[in-house]
Amino acid sequence: MSSSLSIYNSLSGKTELFKSISPNKVGMYVCGPTVYNNVHLGNCRTFISFDLIYRYLIHLGYKVRYVRNITDVGHLENDADEGEDKIAKKAKLEQLEPMEVVQKYTLNFHDVMRLFNTVAPDIEPTATGHISEQIEMVEKIMEAGFAYEISGSVYFDVQAYVDRGNEYGELSGRQIDELIAGSRELDGQSEKKSSNDFALWKNANENHIMKWSSPWGIGFPGWHLECSAMSTKYLGENFDIHGGGMDLKFPHHECEIAQCKSISGKSPVNYWMHGNMLTLNGKKMSKSTGNTILPDELFTGSSVHLEKAFSPSVVRFFMLQSHYGGVLDFSNDALIASEKGFKK
Amino acid sequence: MSSSLSIYNSLSGKTELFKSISPNKVGMYVCGPTVYNNVHLGNCRTFISFDLIYRYLIHLGYKVRYVRNITDVGHLENDADEGEDKIAKKAKLEQLEPMEVVQKYTLNFHDVMRLFNTVAPDIEPTATGHISEQIEMVEKIMEAGFAYEISGSVYFDVQAYVDRGNEYGELSGRQIDELIAGSRELDGQSEKKSSNDFALWKNANENHIMKWSSPWGIGFPGWHLECSAMSTKYLGENFDIHGGGMDLKFPHHECEIAQCKSISGKSPVNYWMHGNMLTLNGKKMSKSTGNTILPDELFTGSSVHLEKAFSPSVVRFFMLQSHYGGVLDFSNDALIASEKGFKK
Repeated sequence: MSSSLSIYNSLSGKTELFKSISPNKVGMYVCGPTVYNNVHLGNCRTFISFDLIYRYLIHLGYKVRYVRNITDVGHLENDADEGEDKIAKKAKLEQLEPMEVVQKYTLNFHDVMRLFNTVAPDIEPTATGHISEQIEMVEKIMEAGFAYEISGSVYFDVQAYVDRGNEYGELSGRQIDELIAGSRELDGQSEKKSSNDFALWKNANENHIMKWSSPWGIGFPGWHLECSAMSTKYLGENFDIHGGGMDLKFPHHECEIAQCKSISGKSPVNYWMHGNMLTLNGKKMSKSTGNTILPDELFTGSSVHLEKAFSPSVVRFFMLQSHYGGVLDFSNDALIASEKGFKK
Repeated sequence: MSSSLSIYNSLSGKTELFKSISPNKVGMYVCGPTVYNNVHLGNCRTFISFDLIYRYLIHLGYKVRYVRNITDVGHLENDADEGEDKIAKKAKLEQLEPMEVVQKYTLNFHDVMRLFNTVAPDIEPTATGHISEQIEMVEKIMEAGFAYEISGSVYFDVQAYVDRGNEYGELSGRQIDELIAGSRELDGQSEKKSSNDFALWKNANENHIMKWSSPWGIGFPGWHLECSAMSTKYLGENFDIHGGGMDLKFPHHECEIAQCKSISGKSPVNYWMHGNMLTLNGKKMSKSTGNTILPDELFTGSSVHLEKAFSPSVVRFFMLQSHYGGVLDFSNDALIASEKGFKK
């Protein structure tokens, strides 16, 4: 390698010199979108950032296997294993088969990614495409003694994981003692032993429309499990880089580490990289307040926040002028300035 | 409906007035590509034909659910359940993970389909994405008494199917007596009871790279099974239209009918539609003789068979000037004539 690469590793909290596991090869997994909506701009930023990282690794001479998944089942409305599946909910709303919802928003995602001139990943696995692999992973976690079944659902046992010397919270910095203290209040309100425990497999009731057979009855996989099953299948038990948005650090990525470590005893990922959030005119983007822009609105200029349309190339250029790890503020003026720079 | 639609039904051999199962709704399944190669022009013709049919059904006022699969496992090199998996073979050749091969050629397929201005299907399911569903279908066929297991593989029992009053050959016109007479010569050369029997699930040896757990051990699904499992899941046990290339009539579609009927007792499809082949300068297209053109070669003009490049719109126009059920001959002169017509 002629050039070296330094990476801010979210796991250590330090900037480290990058060293690949195999000489000249890199395995990189990035959490892709849950396809129940047109892709939002914050997600685009994450994928554009990792597109640059992917291209730069190739430029350095690495053979990169870049895996970015499509979440098409199991992502519930909240992180406490409750609420409807986001895709099933949209399917009811739009009177479509869930897989029609998946197709519609996967097409939108691919269209927008193409406009932003990103290179497609080498593998783009789906959660529904890996039900067998997820069931096998649950079985392995149970065999290792880190999960328990209740009424057709299987939960990861965080306390058992901690008791055997593992640190739950090593990535996010959450303190397990505080989490556990907080969870006592919820005793009796959930079938889980502790509110820190998370679903690996959920029992499906009759009304649930996306479901599969398993050793624990009819159900569906937990959201955190899919990424562990797919990254292990395509990149192995220990790979180089795992990326995603900052909002996925906890619980999603913390749970991924716990799931993998409970089986292999090894840390699954050497470098964790997290993209930061977007703001609009200095405030958090939010659908409910209207402080938001969708990619299409940028390209057409059809947003109250914009004076004019901006090409995908200008938006990409604007995004890549700042470091992916920092918050980036979108505004009409900043985009106009970037457009001038881009034209030069 | 303001206009009526007549369809040449390959099953009856007659042109019939189209009547949908549910008022104003149509379920249509088209066999998609096996993604181990850049898509060839014959496949493109099939998908462009069904794109027109899809658009026309919508024009007539139907709500259409159009399902077109991606075959990413189980399609072996020959129809007698022997030979390597086409994708696994390419993966070894290109030193890639099979799913990298799948991604590479799925991207090519989607790119070419976009250039030809085809509308994406409503659902685009993959064979690897429906392993659980395929295993369950094999179990149902076994329970119904139409399949048997030998050494970790499960085969469809064509003789049992015929003995119970079903006609194997109703779509393709093949005579089962002749097929069975011919098969006796093969006795002892295969673990199958008869060479007419076909694999529903195949045992995978240690070297096989695409494999999953099943009640019969580690293996992979048979090619014919995937379409039955996916069409049943998304369109039900009886749906309106099933399409594909003429070369799929036997054994692929004949086997689909047998698989579905053995479980439901019903004919799965009301209208079978088959697109015919392409020739080039009056002769069969064939890689080995060089008498072939790829879509890219048409668009760039980089073929010894062409004087110039032709736009995807001209090629689409040329294809749609003839009926999908007839053989269409490609030639430089015919394309030039179509280009003139298209420009008018």
